[in-house]
Amino acid sequence: MADQQARTGGDKRPTEIPAIRWEEPPEGPVLVLLDQTRLPAEEVELVCTDASALVEAIRSLAVRGAPLLGIAGAYGVALAAARGFDVPEAARALEGARPTAVNLSVGVRRAESAYQAVLARTGDPTAAAVAALAAARALHQEDAEASARMAAHGLTLLDELLPAGGHRILTHCNTGSLVSGGEGTAFAVALAAHRAGRLRRLWVDETRPLLQGARLTAYEAARSGMPYTLLTDNAAGSLFAAGEVDAVLIGADRIAADGSVANKVGSYPLAVLARYHHVPFIVVAPVTTIDPDTPDGASIEVEQRPGFEVTEIVAPQVAAAGAAGGIPVAPLGTQAYNPAFDVTPPELVTAIVTEEGAVSPVTAESLAGLCARSRRTADQA
Amino acid sequence: MADQQARTGGDKRPTEIPAIRWEEPPEGPVLVLLDQTRLPAEEVELVCTDASALVEAIRSLAVRGAPLLGIAGAYGVALAAARGFDVPEAARALEGARPTAVNLSVGVRRAESAYQAVLARTGDPTAAAVAALAAARALHQEDAEASARMAAHGLTLLDELLPAGGHRILTHCNTGSLVSGGEGTAFAVALAAHRAGRLRRLWVDETRPLLQGARLTAYEAARSGMPYTLLTDNAAGSLFAAGEVDAVLIGADRIAADGSVANKVGSYPLAVLARYHHVPFIVVAPVTTIDPDTPDGASIEVEQRPGFEVTEIVAPQVAAAGAAGGIPVAPLGTQAYNPAFDVTPPELVTAIVTEEGAVSPVTAESLAGLCARSRRTADQA
Repeated sequence: MADQQARTGGDKRPTEIPAIRWEEPPEGPVLVLLDQTRLPAEEVELVCTDASALVEAIRSLAVRGAPLLGIAGAYGVALAAARGFDVPEAARALEGARPTAVNLSVGVRRAESAYQAVLARTGDPTAAAVAALAAARALHQEDAEASARMAAHGLTLLDELLPAGGHRILTHCNTGSLVSGGEGTAFAVALAAHRAGRLRRLWVDETRPLLQGARLTAYEAARSGMPYTLLTDNAAGSLFAAGEVDAVLIGADRIAADGSVANKVGSYPLAVLARYHHVPFIVVAPVTTIDPDTPDGASIEVEQRPGFEVTEIVAPQVAAAGAAGGIPVAPLGTQAYNPAFDVTPPELVTAIVTEEGAVSPVTAESLAGLCARSRRTADQA
Repeated sequence: MADQQARTGGDKRPTEIPAIRWEEPPEGPVLVLLDQTRLPAEEVELVCTDASALVEAIRSLAVRGAPLLGIAGAYGVALAAARGFDVPEAARALEGARPTAVNLSVGVRRAESAYQAVLARTGDPTAAAVAALAAARALHQEDAEASARMAAHGLTLLDELLPAGGHRILTHCNTGSLVSGGEGTAFAVALAAHRAGRLRRLWVDETRPLLQGARLTAYEAARSGMPYTLLTDNAAGSLFAAGEVDAVLIGADRIAADGSVANKVGSYPLAVLARYHHVPFIVVAPVTTIDPDTPDGASIEVEQRPGFEVTEIVAPQVAAAGAAGGIPVAPLGTQAYNPAFDVTPPELVTAIVTEEGAVSPVTAESLAGLCARSRRTADQA
C-alpha cells in the first residue's frame, strides 16, 4: 500500500461544488443541488425552480443526509414563497418526501413559521418570503458553524487521546459536506486533522449495501486531498489486528438518552473491534441528534430496508452503465436481512463529540448535562 | 423476516449438477465442470477435452476451492493420459495454472506418480492412463469421505455445544460442494444439521468483495432446500447483538501449527464478535489444511488482491448484463486495501473440526496430537 491520493485530489481545496446553494438569476430564485446519486461518476447539478422538483430530488436521494435535508426543506419553503406558490401546500409536500427524516420536518417548519409570522404581521407576501429565506440561511449557517465547532472539539480530543499524532482514522458511511451545511460531523474532524498536518491515513469503509463510503466519502476525501484508502467493511478487522487504526470516527442518526448510538449498519462491529483492540471509538454528532424521548438502545426502532439492496447490485453507476435496475448477484428468491442501522451501547463509545464539546464517559448523566448546557447556550443567544 | 427458501430450493436434494465429473462418451473421455463464474445466474457446464482447456478453466475461476482444485488437477492428468497427450507437459501446465494453490499441485502429482509408476513397470501407456484415472478417482472419493466425516463430527460438536437444537448458524464465504469432492467443510456441517432437522437458519455473509456467499453459498443452500438468509458482512453484528446467532462455522485456507487460522477476509471480525457475545466459533477443515511448517499466525503470508475488486463491481453477472469489465463505484484513482484472507488467533477459535475429529481447546499440542493420529490412521490404511 503506497501512499496515494485520488487523481482529482491534487488541489487542497474542499469540495468545490456545494451540496446545496441558493441562487438568484434574472429568471427568478432557484435552489441548486449536487446530484448525489451520480457521484462519483459525474458531478451533475440539479436546479430546482419549485418545491415539487425538490420533493422529487429528496425522494430520489439526489439530496440526502439528516442535517442537509433540514436545510433543503427550509430552502424549499423559501423557494415556494419567493416564486409565489402556496407555501403551506409546498411545506406539507416537502415534509412528506421522507417522513422518517425528522430534520427535514424541523427545517421546513422553521422557514414556514418565519414566513407565517411576517405574513400575519405585515400582510406582505414578499416580506414573508424574505423572512423564510432568512430562516433557511440561518439554519444553513448554524449547521456550518456547528460542523466547525465539532471539528475543533474532535481534533482536540484526538490530540489528547493520541499525543503521538500521525492519526490513522477509520470511518464508516458518509459524514462530510454532502450531508451538512458545513463540512459534516466525523469527516469534518478527520478533515481538521488533515489541515493541521496530523492525518496520516483515512481508512474508508465501503459501507455495504449502498456503498456510501466508496461513492461519497472517497469522493470527498479525494476532493480535499486527504490521504485515504478504501476497504471492504469486513477488511477492517485485519487493519485493527495489524495495529493500523488509531481511532474510529463515525456519525450518528440518533443517540438515545442513555448514550446508545444508532448509526449506519456496520458501526457496531467496529465498536466491538475497537474495544477488543483498545482503540478509541468516537461518535461525532450535533446535540440535536440526542433524543431525550428515546430512553435506551432497545427503544430505537431500526429501519429494515428492502432485500434487493443486498441481493442485487444497485450502485447508481450500474444504471449509468446501461443496465436497467439492479443486477442480481444472489439466486432468485433469496431473502436478505438488511437493517439500515445498528445500535452501539454506550459502554463501547469512548466519547461523543458535539458542537458543545465532548462527553466522556458516555452516560445518561453526562449526556443530560450536555443537553442542559446546550439549552442554556441557546437561551442566551 | 419470514421463513423463506429460494424458489429453486423446493426439492430437498443437494446440488444436482456436481462441480466436477469424469465422463466417457463414445468420442473419448472428458472432464465436465460446473462453471462457477456463471453462478447463480446460469448453470452452465464446461466440457474439457484436454488439459489446456482445464488450465484455462482453473485460471478463470470456473473451477475453484482448494480441495476441488486438487481433484481437478488429478483428473486433468488422467485426461491427458487417456487422450494420449504428453503427460509431464500437461502436469506442469496444470500445476502452474494457480501456483499458490498447494492442493492443485498435490493432486496433479498424485495422478502423475500413479501414471509414471505403471508406465515404468509395464511400458503400457493405456494401463498407465487407467492408473492415473484411478488415482484421481481415489482422491475424489477420499475427499468426499473426509467431508462426510467432518460433517458428522461437526454436527456432534454442535449438538454438544447447543443442546437445545434449532441451530442458527452464521457462515462466511463458500465451503460446500462447489469446493469439494463431497459436500464441503463448514457448509457440510450445516447441511448435516439441516438433514437431521436441527438447522433453524443458515445466515449467509455475502462475503465482499467477490460475493462468494451471495453467489455460491446462497445457491448451494437454495439447492439443498435449507432455510437461509443473506446479509451484508457488516450486518452480522446486529444479528449477534439480537441473539440470533448460535454458532459461527467457517472453513480454513491454512491452519498454522499454533492453531492460527487463515481464512477468507472477514472471518476474524466474526471471531471477535463471537467472543464478545459468547458464541462458539468453529473452524471446519481437513487435516491437510494444518501446516506444521507454518509455526504461527504471524508467519502466514496474506495475499493482497488487486484494488479494482473493491473499487469496481466485478460480479460475473455484470459482464452478463452487458458491461465490459467492472463498473467503477469509487472515484478514479482510489487506492484500496484488499487482503484476500485474515488470520484468527487460536484463543478465539472454540474448536477445529477435521475428518479425524474435533480439537478443543485449540493449542499447538492438541493440533500436533491430531496430526499424529491422522498419520497413524493413514499408515494403518
